[in-house]
Amino acid sequence: MMLPALYVDDVIRTALKEDISYIDAATDLLLDPSQTATALMLAKADGVLCGLEAALRVFTLLSPAFTFETYKKDGDRLFKGEPIATVTGPVTLLLKGERTALNLVQHMSGIATATRRLVDLVAGTRATVADTRKTLPGLRPLQKYAVLCGGGRNHRFNLSDCAMLKDNHIDAAGGIPQAVAALRKKLGHTVKIEVETRNLDEVAQAVEAKADIIMLDNMDTDTMRRAVALVNGRALTEASGNITEQTAAAVAQTGVDILSVGALTHSVTAFDISLKIQKS
Amino acid sequence: MMLPALYVDDVIRTALKEDISYIDAATDLLLDPSQTATALMLAKADGVLCGLEAALRVFTLLSPAFTFETYKKDGDRLFKGEPIATVTGPVTLLLKGERTALNLVQHMSGIATATRRLVDLVAGTRATVADTRKTLPGLRPLQKYAVLCGGGRNHRFNLSDCAMLKDNHIDAAGGIPQAVAALRKKLGHTVKIEVETRNLDEVAQAVEAKADIIMLDNMDTDTMRRAVALVNGRALTEASGNITEQTAAAVAQTGVDILSVGALTHSVTAFDISLKIQKS
Amino acid sequence: MMLPALYVDDVIRTALKEDISYIDAATDLLLDPSQTATALMLAKADGVLCGLEAALRVFTLLSPAFTFETYKKDGDRLFKGEPIATVTGPVTLLLKGERTALNLVQHMSGIATATRRLVDLVAGTRATVADTRKTLPGLRPLQKYAVLCGGGRNHRFNLSDCAMLKDNHIDAAGGIPQAVAALRKKLGHTVKIEVETRNLDEVAQAVEAKADIIMLDNMDTDTMRRAVALVNGRALTEASGNITEQTAAAVAQTGVDILSVGALTHSVTAFDISLKIQKS
Amino acid sequence: MMLPALYVDDVIRTALKEDISYIDAATDLLLDPSQTATALMLAKADGVLCGLEAALRVFTLLSPAFTFETYKKDGDRLFKGEPIATVTGPVTLLLKGERTALNLVQHMSGIATATRRLVDLVAGTRATVADTRKTLPGLRPLQKYAVLCGGGRNHRFNLSDCAMLKDNHIDAAGGIPQAVAALRKKLGHTVKIEVETRNLDEVAQAVEAKADIIMLDNMDTDTMRRAVALVNGRALTEASGNITEQTAAAVAQTGVDILSVGALTHSVTAFDISLKIQKS
Amino acid sequence: MMLPALYVDDVIRTALKEDISYIDAATDLLLDPSQTATALMLAKADGVLCGLEAALRVFTLLSPAFTFETYKKDGDRLFKGEPIATVTGPVTLLLKGERTALNLVQHMSGIATATRRLVDLVAGTRATVADTRKTLPGLRPLQKYAVLCGGGRNHRFNLSDCAMLKDNHIDAAGGIPQAVAALRKKLGHTVKIEVETRNLDEVAQAVEAKADIIMLDNMDTDTMRRAVALVNGRALTEASGNITEQTAAAVAQTGVDILSVGALTHSVTAFDISLKIQKS
Amino acid sequence: MMLPALYVDDVIRTALKEDISYIDAATDLLLDPSQTATALMLAKADGVLCGLEAALRVFTLLSPAFTFETYKKDGDRLFKGEPIATVTGPVTLLLKGERTALNLVQHMSGIATATRRLVDLVAGTRATVADTRKTLPGLRPLQKYAVLCGGGRNHRFNLSDCAMLKDNHIDAAGGIPQAVAALRKKLGHTVKIEVETRNLDEVAQAVEAKADIIMLDNMDTDTMRRAVALVNGRALTEASGNITEQTAAAVAQTGVDILSVGALTHSVTAFDISLKIQKS
Repeated sequence: MMLPALYVDDVIRTALKEDISYIDAATDLLLDPSQTATALMLAKADGVLCGLEAALRVFTLLSPAFTFETYKKDGDRLFKGEPIATVTGPVTLLLKGERTALNLVQHMSGIATATRRLVDLVAGTRATVADTRKTLPGLRPLQKYAVLCGGGRNHRFNLSDCAMLKDNHIDAAGGIPQAVAALRKKLGHTVKIEVETRNLDEVAQAVEAKADIIMLDNMDTDTMRRAVALVNGRALTEASGNITEQTAAAVAQTGVDILSVGALTHSVTAFDISLKIQKS
Repeated sequence: MMLPALYVDDVIRTALKEDISYIDAATDLLLDPSQTATALMLAKADGVLCGLEAALRVFTLLSPAFTFETYKKDGDRLFKGEPIATVTGPVTLLLKGERTALNLVQHMSGIATATRRLVDLVAGTRATVADTRKTLPGLRPLQKYAVLCGGGRNHRFNLSDCAMLKDNHIDAAGGIPQAVAALRKKLGHTVKIEVETRNLDEVAQAVEAKADIIMLDNMDTDTMRRAVALVNGRALTEASGNITEQTAAAVAQTGVDILSVGALTHSVTAFDISLKIQKS
Repeated sequence: MMLPALYVDDVIRTALKEDISYIDAATDLLLDPSQTATALMLAKADGVLCGLEAALRVFTLLSPAFTFETYKKDGDRLFKGEPIATVTGPVTLLLKGERTALNLVQHMSGIATATRRLVDLVAGTRATVADTRKTLPGLRPLQKYAVLCGGGRNHRFNLSDCAMLKDNHIDAAGGIPQAVAALRKKLGHTVKIEVETRNLDEVAQAVEAKADIIMLDNMDTDTMRRAVALVNGRALTEASGNITEQTAAAVAQTGVDILSVGALTHSVTAFDISLKIQKS
Repeated sequence: MMLPALYVDDVIRTALKEDISYIDAATDLLLDPSQTATALMLAKADGVLCGLEAALRVFTLLSPAFTFETYKKDGDRLFKGEPIATVTGPVTLLLKGERTALNLVQHMSGIATATRRLVDLVAGTRATVADTRKTLPGLRPLQKYAVLCGGGRNHRFNLSDCAMLKDNHIDAAGGIPQAVAALRKKLGHTVKIEVETRNLDEVAQAVEAKADIIMLDNMDTDTMRRAVALVNGRALTEASGNITEQTAAAVAQTGVDILSVGALTHSVTAFDISLKIQKS
Repeated sequence: MMLPALYVDDVIRTALKEDISYIDAATDLLLDPSQTATALMLAKADGVLCGLEAALRVFTLLSPAFTFETYKKDGDRLFKGEPIATVTGPVTLLLKGERTALNLVQHMSGIATATRRLVDLVAGTRATVADTRKTLPGLRPLQKYAVLCGGGRNHRFNLSDCAMLKDNHIDAAGGIPQAVAALRKKLGHTVKIEVETRNLDEVAQAVEAKADIIMLDNMDTDTMRRAVALVNGRALTEASGNITEQTAAAVAQTGVDILSVGALTHSVTAFDISLKIQKS
Repeated sequence: MMLPALYVDDVIRTALKEDISYIDAATDLLLDPSQTATALMLAKADGVLCGLEAALRVFTLLSPAFTFETYKKDGDRLFKGEPIATVTGPVTLLLKGERTALNLVQHMSGIATATRRLVDLVAGTRATVADTRKTLPGLRPLQKYAVLCGGGRNHRFNLSDCAMLKDNHIDAAGGIPQAVAALRKKLGHTVKIEVETRNLDEVAQAVEAKADIIMLDNMDTDTMRRAVALVNGRALTEASGNITEQTAAAVAQTGVDILSVGALTHSVTAFDISLKIQKS
């Protein structure tokens, strides 16, 4: 996994503490903690796997005695009924970790699956699919990683690593060229400048100002096409605003470089994966 | 808000740290930190508000100098175009907090809105709508609270506060009656026992065993109706498994007490709310 | 241990940081860190063991190189002079962890021992012994677990997992029946309702209102006996208020279901256990 | 309070999170959050107050809107029935904070009260009463502060701030003089050296070695008296081992400088304090 | 301050806990906590101020009752003897916060002062001065902010927000052009690519590969000058390696765009600032 | 290492999170995570090693699969070009941990090296070299340990473990003798009292008051010599104020016991160490 376990552990610990005040009332009072079992993780639909290592890490944090066999890895396509992995360890801890593990892998696979669908829809154009900062609190690293696993590309991680000029910045500086110029003077040399535009006039100004990226915000596809022509390769163009599976192909065909899609991370449908303890 | 600020703060701090490594590159290098502005929070669709205080808390944590006017409160119905609140404070901090605040209130309102739709669909039956433990890591208190705001009721919070007997527990104890009896001997007297059942025979056993709650897992509505008759008020009955807006009314009409719905928290569609700085 | 190591680790880390600002002044400046030793953990009195795995975990967190032999497990009776376990590892870390390990196991065994004494005193009655929320800050999971190890049963873990109606709630709702009815409408179906009563009239109201549990608060045994008769199995009855080793048997003989005892966790006498490094 | 709020807050936050998973089931579903109430904190026995500011801080962390009137302060003697403080704020938060606040102030006052009893018992001798490192995990700063409030004095806070030579150190160095000498060469000049002794021969060696403090470990009072004479003011003498209210005066009369008592912090009896909401 | 208090608070809390196990032994046992005092913060040398708000925040975290008057702000030039601010509040807390506050402001002003000296040395050239990732653990946000206050510009904050191709990446990809091309396919569109080069051949390849930034690693000024000519504005050029106050001007005169200097953050000389309580 | 890994881990985790928002953009997108490499850690100058185990711990926290060979240990002298250790593990994690590991070991070795130079300069006198509380936030345990590794000795760790009387304390108590006497009455018996003095009159008072340590604050060497004579072994004497490599020997020759030097920890020059992946 690209995300070192270190980063995932905080999320898992918080989730486990939410899920267990102190004991698993049914499991700890009925089952023998020395008994071992094996559970099978299975795809219940077609999609893209993401979060497998995070899910398995849940069990490792509960006990280093857990062992795993994995048949798939993050980024792999899944078909309904396919086995993903087996988890072997103390049955009481298997049951304690099950929900937390599934909540993680189902959410991350949901993102990867939806991303992949969009990526496939724009195949054959120059466009790539990107996420946004519209992520769920505490889950940004996991969500951005899931977009990568789905074949998407990541937009800026946060407010510090790319400068996005919105109307408040532009108004304060007195216009797009002034804002870009003022910012270049102080901004770190590794940080790109993106300008939000709503019409062709603003696009033209952003090009003149040598913005690195020009966001075409909520434009119709016709305007986007003209914007792309106007920019003519002098900056990257990014389509933004209500891009769905219905509209993605049409937007991509305008020639824009990037489609950024908030729903990839703010409106996630969990991907169905089960984890069943095998009867011996 | 029922959730004390204390509980929400950890989520907000984590989210703000995800969103700002150290500066807001555009805002901090261009805008005057002593300048104040007012932003208007607005509903962009019809639904139910949840997370307003959590969203406003984002700004308070950035600076105690922020002031607010609120026109709605958590649990209120929202109509497209309605103002929700205004936020007044340093413009640089308004821009730094905006995304985190919206991510919170859009997610929580999304849950409350979807819950309300299901609650309305089962109105007139004895059934209530409940959530599950299928929540997103780190967000369970906020998600459960959002279900409450949407008119739903909360299933168990975690593994410690209700004992759910699944097949592993039942097999280990030698049957449903044995499992319930063994558990009653050790379980705290404030904790209810719920038994997962998949057919009428198991339902009958669970009733005999004096389970407090009987889950009817993935049964068709006809079987559920017969299960409800069989239980005849001697336990609460809970329908579980793939309950959607399409099927909720039919399930409720079987006479079950509770419909538990994982999608309320694992597959959330963000509710659209905007926060725009007002031009002076 | 029912408590996964994960949950105990936070307590141990905090304790170790309290106990070591940076070095163990005597040990680190005098002893050879490559030298290994074995220490013997020994009961210095008669009682019930609890916290052994927590105590050994202290050493594992200091170094994964420690090894252990255990002769007893949590919940076992201990007699003065009995060996409990041996701990083998770097002598410098043995000395660094010793105090923290003993502080944990002595506190938890103190709770288990006192619980067991009460449980034995009520043997032969229908009554069980339960703890309360009168726990020490940060130690609730460990203290509740120790009560379980001593043969007691756990009262509600916190304010979220059982609804206790006290006079403030009852007054606000306009009476016991109104309070119970209003609460049932919104409360999750897995949560029981307990009503605090101070006289037989309130007991009668609580029974009528179908409370799940009726607390008999600070009643004399005669009143308790009449309350139990009045309830007649329609709810669980819980005796509360100043229950001691002197009074427990008499209270239990009133026929109540539960004796809840704050002193089990708020006034703990440490159980004497030693850990001595063996001379080679 | 000597302990800045900053230090107490971590303890309180942990305790509040233990006590509330997300809502107070009874309070949040029945009471009006906009309603204000006043609660009176009252002594239910005779003793010494400690932890008042910590207890009030619980409410401030729940809402900055709370106000307080205090009639006593940490370290004050309390008599049964005396009012300690009033707490005014939102009734829902009063009920949420009550248990956590009482758990803190009852534990800390329990320590201060027991300390004061010992201090009074040794009045008129040169001896002072000190605590040890036998504290409860996570509570050391609060417990040590409570000993101060009870008129006691604090032994070393941790392993870093005083070097205690035990048999392992002495054996490794080849004897008491060698151990003290070796340590002086590396030890920080602000750190004292204490030597644990079990007989007069060891006491004599420790004096020769110029130990700053000589612990008389588990000696009978006659031996202690002779040890004190032998030391003759060249080092501080500390009596240690099973000192109780029954034996303290006799031990103090041997002329030792310090009585160190583990039970002050490892076996605490909560001091009874109530917090009742006043009827309007 | 650009850094919201939120971000600085973690650093301060850790520092205060390092500095106070539980009490300030001299202050808490001798001074009256109700007594108020005013302390004057003063420059003891010539330089640039940074960290004033962070230093004052120390006192606010100790008590919200502190008040401040400030005569300078972060980024201002300081001359020896100039007053910077006054701090008024409880004398016991003034003494508890003093060291932590000074440690912060002296370190941050040390960085700002050294940065400013380098910036002044390259004035008149096109070059700007930048920091690196050679920061002290836990202090990166504060150190990067201090470089900004000194007139420098920030290099990448971390490994995620700019892609730096070093020999390991280049070897694995089969050469500079292959590495840049492979990376562009997957890298987020907001992230720049920098290539480390050690000779003119590598510089030429990096230009061809359309790297955004070309690092001239440890080149002599003559080679740098030729590299700048070769690049001819098609990428930013960054001089790296042992740049000191002695060599900065010469390096800048080669025409490079950026001088990156690890010593700005890894080898900081504290700037002398005092905080003295005023006699009344 | 004297510092248990436990203590160093918090620093490392914070540093790694600063350095990686979620991925290493170049490494994770270009290199094969299953590929293993070996890196050699090398001294680039002459000095004293400190922080090796801390640096290696960075890699262990990234993956337990890392293995190490070490040729030097903390406290060892290093000569330019000497190998220190090799690190073998996944190449992607080697690159992710490299900067954090080097930042730690370079800082700590910088402190040890500078300490050793001062210690060598005062060799042959009775004086030892000590640090102060002028440490960097969050790094005090590591910095104090580094001073030990360089042959220095640690001054008090914090405000709780040694009582330092400054003018504010002395004025409040009415003079040096009064302050010392008042403090002795309440102070723990393991805590030493140090008095700050600025002239011989104050030194005389401090001796009379039986202070344990007398700080000679910013005195010239002649005054110091007379102070030492005046004290005549009745207390430890500590020279403080602007002690540098130029002045240390002269100060030591006055006969003082301790030279305390803030610059050891507040103005650290990183010691140059490299970590290069070996070509296969």
